[in-house]
Amino acid sequence: MNFEIKYKDARGRVGTLKTPHGIIKTPALMPVIHPGKQTLPVSDYGAEVVITNAYLIYKNEELREKALNDGVHELIDFTGPIVTDSGSFQLSEYGDVQVTNEEIVKFQEMIGTDIGTSLDIPTPPSVKRERAEKELIITLKRAKEALEVREELMLNSVVQGSTFPDLRSECAQKLGKMDFQVHPIGAVVPLMESYRYQELVEVVMASVSHLPDSRPRHLMGAGHPMIFALAVAMGCDLFDSAAYILYAEDDRLLMPNGTLKLENLYEMPCSCEVCTSYTPEELRQMEKEKRTELLAIHNLRMSFAEMRLIRQAIVDGSLWELVEQRCRAHPFLLEALRSLKNYSLDLEKYDPPYKKSAFFYTGPESLNRPEVYRHLKRMERISPSQKLILLPRSGKPYSERLYDLPQTFYKVVDNDSSAVAGTGSSRIPQEDMQVAVVDVPFGIIPLELDQVYPLAQNESPADYDEDSIKMVKNALRDYIKGFKEIIISAEVARKFALEQVLSLEDYSFQESLKIDVDDHKRIIMIADYQFGSGAGEGLFNEEVKIVKSRKTRKIRHVYDGDELIATLRASDGVFVLAKEGARRLHRYLPYPKNRVVVNEDAEPFAREGKSIFAKFVINCDIDIHAKEEVLIVNEQDQLLAFGKSILNGKEILNFNTGQAVKTRKGGL
Amino acid sequence: MNFEIKYKDARGRVGTLKTPHGIIKTPALMPVIHPGKQTLPVSDYGAEVVITNAYLIYKNEELREKALNDGVHELIDFTGPIVTDSGSFQLSEYGDVQVTNEEIVKFQEMIGTDIGTSLDIPTPPSVKRERAEKELIITLKRAKEALEVREELMLNSVVQGSTFPDLRSECAQKLGKMDFQVHPIGAVVPLMESYRYQELVEVVMASVSHLPDSRPRHLMGAGHPMIFALAVAMGCDLFDSAAYILYAEDDRLLMPNGTLKLENLYEMPCSCEVCTSYTPEELRQMEKEKRTELLAIHNLRMSFAEMRLIRQAIVDGSLWELVEQRCRAHPFLLEALRSLKNYSLDLEKYDPPYKKSAFFYTGPESLNRPEVYRHLKRMERISPSQKLILLPRSGKPYSERLYDLPQTFYKVVDNDSSAVAGTGSSRIPQEDMQVAVVDVPFGIIPLELDQVYPLAQNESPADYDEDSIKMVKNALRDYIKGFKEIIISAEVARKFALEQVLSLEDYSFQESLKIDVDDHKRIIMIADYQFGSGAGEGLFNEEVKIVKSRKTRKIRHVYDGDELIATLRASDGVFVLAKEGARRLHRYLPYPKNRVVVNEDAEPFAREGKSIFAKFVINCDIDIHAKEEVLIVNEQDQLLAFGKSILNGKEILNFNTGQAVKTRKGGL
Repeated sequence: MNFEIKYKDARGRVGTLKTPHGIIKTPALMPVIHPGKQTLPVSDYGAEVVITNAYLIYKNEELREKALNDGVHELIDFTGPIVTDSGSFQLSEYGDVQVTNEEIVKFQEMIGTDIGTSLDIPTPPSVKRERAEKELIITLKRAKEALEVREELMLNSVVQGSTFPDLRSECAQKLGKMDFQVHPIGAVVPLMESYRYQELVEVVMASVSHLPDSRPRHLMGAGHPMIFALAVAMGCDLFDSAAYILYAEDDRLLMPNGTLKLENLYEMPCSCEVCTSYTPEELRQMEKEKRTELLAIHNLRMSFAEMRLIRQAIVDGSLWELVEQRCRAHPFLLEALRSLKNYSLDLEKYDPPYKKSAFFYTGPESLNRPEVYRHLKRMERISPSQKLILLPRSGKPYSERLYDLPQTFYKVVDNDSSAVAGTGSSRIPQEDMQVAVVDVPFGIIPLELDQVYPLAQNESPADYDEDSIKMVKNALRDYIKGFKEIIISAEVARKFALEQVLSLEDYSFQESLKIDVDDHKRIIMIADYQFGSGAGEGLFNEEVKIVKSRKTRKIRHVYDGDELIATLRASDGVFVLAKEGARRLHRYLPYPKNRVVVNEDAEPFAREGKSIFAKFVINCDIDIHAKEEVLIVNEQDQLLAFGKSILNGKEILNFNTGQAVKTRKGGL
Repeated sequence: MNFEIKYKDARGRVGTLKTPHGIIKTPALMPVIHPGKQTLPVSDYGAEVVITNAYLIYKNEELREKALNDGVHELIDFTGPIVTDSGSFQLSEYGDVQVTNEEIVKFQEMIGTDIGTSLDIPTPPSVKRERAEKELIITLKRAKEALEVREELMLNSVVQGSTFPDLRSECAQKLGKMDFQVHPIGAVVPLMESYRYQELVEVVMASVSHLPDSRPRHLMGAGHPMIFALAVAMGCDLFDSAAYILYAEDDRLLMPNGTLKLENLYEMPCSCEVCTSYTPEELRQMEKEKRTELLAIHNLRMSFAEMRLIRQAIVDGSLWELVEQRCRAHPFLLEALRSLKNYSLDLEKYDPPYKKSAFFYTGPESLNRPEVYRHLKRMERISPSQKLILLPRSGKPYSERLYDLPQTFYKVVDNDSSAVAGTGSSRIPQEDMQVAVVDVPFGIIPLELDQVYPLAQNESPADYDEDSIKMVKNALRDYIKGFKEIIISAEVARKFALEQVLSLEDYSFQESLKIDVDDHKRIIMIADYQFGSGAGEGLFNEEVKIVKSRKTRKIRHVYDGDELIATLRASDGVFVLAKEGARRLHRYLPYPKNRVVVNEDAEPFAREGKSIFAKFVINCDIDIHAKEEVLIVNEQDQLLAFGKSILNGKEILNFNTGQAVKTRKGGL
């Protein structure tokens, strides 16, 4: 396998793809090179990989001879990795090509392509299902044939299936079982051309969710920077751009928030060499050829800058924020973004739970982010109490900013405390009282969790939109089930229109309300929230010793006597296990929960504390996220080591290269 | 007066400010130059105007001598316009300065500053009102004194008043009556530093709404590109950036959506010469001085690019879209954007009603845009009918896309048809039936208006957010008052949860519903909507002849016999008057409605069809927007000519330079 993931955010990955002519840093943009025409030296403007058309070379005798003699790299004068397409585009445009699948695959191998493509059938959107099914059979047959024909050539295998999500998924699944290196998602250009972005999301999500995580996906024909961030967030790794030159020829400038026409320009819009050296008028007066070249340079510069910005956002953990900004470029992109709420379950599994960046609320779409979905699910791990007190938002962390406690409260009348909201809540109330803050976007935040990422590391406007109010109102109505007595500050009730869903009556505390967060209760709740219901009790009994930072007065370590159990990480407020913590968690959590199971060969390395490579993993908890604390065990579930996952459960099982777990300590 | 407006959008202006050393194109960013230190040649990176500190020059003997002998332009080696500050910043930082107001104003004049500043008191945010009031008195006194002291020097006069909107307004109003050339808005840096953007909006709006429109406003200390778009949309024209160098010294990169730290960079984020020539690692390894210079170049390039993009957006009429994108950079910027809904009345007057760009919905904040507010107000100009039929959204223009009319309808029971929604609605129903489409964000669009900007030129996601649903529901509830019979498609009722606010019962049309938009009804309604209640009847009687485009089948011209009354402009679907139209409108609309009144001197020029300069206007309809059809009259309200306004009513009265009306025809 040639692909490795270095950083993750949303469904996006920063990775590397090894090819015979070098390593491609993904997500990557591949400028399209027309093999016959004189073109820009795209590598001067940032191209590290290009794509050209093998069919055009094959069809032209002169080009064919040169390619066969000198290789495709010499032909198009590019020393880095070259991807070639097979003529499928011509097939879709002209209905016919003069080459067979077998011939074109062999040809690509002969000219030294780095990644070749079989001659699939690009079924356009919105055709009759019958046609899509029929063409899919041919596409799959040719894919298989390509595998038999190729020798060492790395192969693209294109996911087709028109706009039928189930056909896309079926195709992805079948191709994924065969030995391909890259999976393009094909025939989506008509969707992008007509701004049918919501359908694009359907097609891409149906494809990526059924493709192996261990191979890059190429969103074919996507060359407008406006779509890059969203596509990467859905798990696309490669893009090709003919747009840079086609738009330039048409006197149009690509921008991450749309397209500008030179004829309408009053100012040059970016900081590239073209925009800072020429005025729009100078460009308009220029002869066509020179102008086209300059606009193509702008288009390349802008597109590569956007791709770099996206990679940076993945490393920072701020990809969602970038996507949500970019999707304001067109209302149909916003519509597409909104439709991601249909994929919460899938997206949550890929999105790392702990990030370097704070969660920034950018609008109602932020309510659909994996972080929110995850919090609501994890709240089911928390045991309910007899009594619940709900306070309005204050500064963060909430428990340290409760200077002005509210004066007026309501009590919920007729709450059905026998009803239960989730699995976690069905456990018997253990604590007398839970105090929580009600806020957007996370809904209910018990004070004990107020330093856990992203509950402390988020910002939202104080002026709530209606979607936020509705979401919190509903979350709250579900959450309070199972509590015997619920007291709500009048401010919370008013802000979230709770009288619409609850019966409320005035309430007064006998004495003035005093809030004090108990340290032991805090560590129990954090552990439950982080590892699952009851994990807190498994890790920390009544006798544990809590050590706080002298400076910040925050909990730092939890000991059993002199033995460290776990450390509360200051940056995101979750536990990092120590040896004793790993042992306790292993004892408490049933197999395969939080486990990564390595084979016999890897066992000694794991015991030594070496990091775990994906190829040694034979099983694991499919619900593990990237960046979680995991237990490394052998097939007999003996604890060997523990560490931090680099990939999620599905990825760990799928990958055969690269690290799966960064081991903290072995020797257990 | 030295300032002219060329293009307008939102409250923003693209304009020119004449100074002794050249013309400043606004909105402009002025890099801060430290007079004593070696600095970057900022003009190489796009600076056309700079700002430096006269007090620092004054205080340093060597600098002072050089400035007095050679002038400030020679001193800091910049040939373009130079603005100087007076030491107020030092006053706010150190509590004291060793210069008097009189001395520093005189000094600025002596060293050849283009725009100087008096020594105001920068009262910080959130002080006690008493202090703000006391300091404001000194600021105003010194402003007055500066006027008496200066000879030819153009003068800044800074609006102060801390975070008290009424004090800011009072200060703005008083300074506006004196002969200053530019108005900085001062002491807002602490607000920006602590992300108190919503308060910044309060301060800026309280200031600009009371400043003369004919002078540029300088948002003092605003150097982060993240805030530029919003500030320009509120009417700020000048910005100063010390940020470019301060952030560079601190290894930070300015971006339009925030700040990046070099230490966290994995990729360079933009397309400037620095970002495309160096890797983050190369910069990190570099010696401090060189690195600072390169980062400063990036910061300048990025800041100037953003400013150019903003000017472009004003020319395109897409500034709101840019602002709404930029305000997602931080939740508190989004909060600030949301707070603009408190200024709808003011913003609507400045925002041109017709733009080159389509209206793109970017989120609930778009519901607060002037276009929506204006539509709802203008709908009050439309006469109600006996019967109202409400259809769901189709493609646009709606009347041409009604392929699949809905099958199921409800009738509103117990509608109070005696209640009236607005002035317009109080007129007697004249038409039998009005058919309207219900859509986001404009609410109710009668089919007759479906080609009028922006009702045809807008896009929004099909997946409505809760704020949109609520807004449309409320607008609809108001609008239907006055109609006798209201039939609503079931789809509309469902999408906008109308059963919550209306009593509905099943309804069937006797025959299948057929929709046909009557041409005469269409021109009447467009004219009412465009010019005011009843204008349609005033312009077009029953006998007018309607001429359609052969190609598009859309209405193009309306004649009375052979005499053209008006032309319906294809791009935005509103009327452009012809001579007869102007005469009829003049007859119908009472003075001063739609009038621009010119003095005796200008009368002959107006009659000849020459454009109207602001200095000749002695009165006008204060409700005129930019880009509207206006009637040019003399003091006796005799119609001289007609044309298109370039400024709004308030601006026309305020300006003494530049064009106010582009005359279409004289000789009436």
